[in-house]
Amino acid sequence: MTTIDINDKLLSKNDQHALANRRLLDSNGVWCVNIIGAPGSGKTTLIERTADKFAGDPEIGVLVGDLETRHDAERIAAHGVEVYQIITGGTCHLTARVVGEYLQRFDIGSLDVLIVENVGNLVCPTSYYLGEHNRMVLVSTPEGDDKPLKYPGAVHTSDLMLVTKTDLAPYTNFDVARAGENARRINADIDVFPVSCTSGEGLDQWFDWFGKHAAEKNSQQA
Amino acid sequence: MTTIDINDKLLSKNDQHALANRRLLDSNGVWCVNIIGAPGSGKTTLIERTADKFAGDPEIGVLVGDLETRHDAERIAAHGVEVYQIITGGTCHLTARVVGEYLQRFDIGSLDVLIVENVGNLVCPTSYYLGEHNRMVLVSTPEGDDKPLKYPGAVHTSDLMLVTKTDLAPYTNFDVARAGENARRINADIDVFPVSCTSGEGLDQWFDWFGKHAAEKNSQQA
Repeated sequence: MTTIDINDKLLSKNDQHALANRRLLDSNGVWCVNIIGAPGSGKTTLIERTADKFAGDPEIGVLVGDLETRHDAERIAAHGVEVYQIITGGTCHLTARVVGEYLQRFDIGSLDVLIVENVGNLVCPTSYYLGEHNRMVLVSTPEGDDKPLKYPGAVHTSDLMLVTKTDLAPYTNFDVARAGENARRINADIDVFPVSCTSGEGLDQWFDWFGKHAAEKNSQQA
Repeated sequence: MTTIDINDKLLSKNDQHALANRRLLDSNGVWCVNIIGAPGSGKTTLIERTADKFAGDPEIGVLVGDLETRHDAERIAAHGVEVYQIITGGTCHLTARVVGEYLQRFDIGSLDVLIVENVGNLVCPTSYYLGEHNRMVLVSTPEGDDKPLKYPGAVHTSDLMLVTKTDLAPYTNFDVARAGENARRINADIDVFPVSCTSGEGLDQWFDWFGKHAAEKNSQQA
């Protein structure tokens, strides 16, 4: 008797779409980062700050996933970047197929960076590779410093963990060093940067990381 | 040709287990509430405060769902209630089947209330009825007051929305009134209580709601 693992079959179809996305991004020298985080972890605000900082150099495009509403895309569009809202209508994650469809909307030859803001969810997006070059996870200080241990998949598959909302840390029992230790117990190689988009603390380290990855990918193509 | 909706079949199997749970709870006069919220929205802390407040009258049992770790169950057990940790090992929600299995661990005849703390996720748990009498959703102020609109399923299927961490509201742009309006656009009948487990603000209203629902169910059985 043969048993069929439905989940494996779905993942493999997703991976086929992801690899097509990756080829399209690579052939156009576009660096892609997939941002994962819980609802309210600060994904949209980080993208707003990043769009302001780079102001078209590199040229950033954004795809935003949400169950409902166009709020996030409207917020981001106000910062002068091309952005499309993907409304999943109840689905808990973005798939490579839908990202591939929305990729067609960009004039990809003029793009340097594609930021994908995934659905606010620390679980399901982790299992869906979208073709990105780097994945990152946001954990905000009000969520608690145990979250890397409780949501290990997000940390294990990410290259960078941003500890966001450090301005709120004094009002919580969040310990940034402990959060970093917890993250490195799951993924010894992960970078951990504390940032606050309100106070600006730590943003330069994030901008350096972002700019360096974008420049490396763009230079590969040139 | 007949097409088979796999999702419907799965849900219907879940619902069969949920109805069995409900019958077991009803026949023993146990009121069950299913708590849904994002990672770090304050589910565990709320249960700790509630266990302290009622101190065995009514007798509370707790099931806690997490992808990994026993942290939450250990925290709750310290408050003198019987608690079991359900480690889902990556699954993004609790199912009625697993709740039914863990229900067997309690001496259900001596229980008055079963609190289920679902996996930290505002999306997937919404689709799985566990047999609970009431469902509630937690939205913490650092998450933002747009969350009811962005995660409508959680609000639509809940009887109560607790706005948690109101002590942090002064440091965010969260507007409690606007969050309530957003919630009632999705679910006109939902109760909305602002609370802070740190300052204690609003907890009496929550305790009243909790105590009233438990007493009603217990009296039905008696």
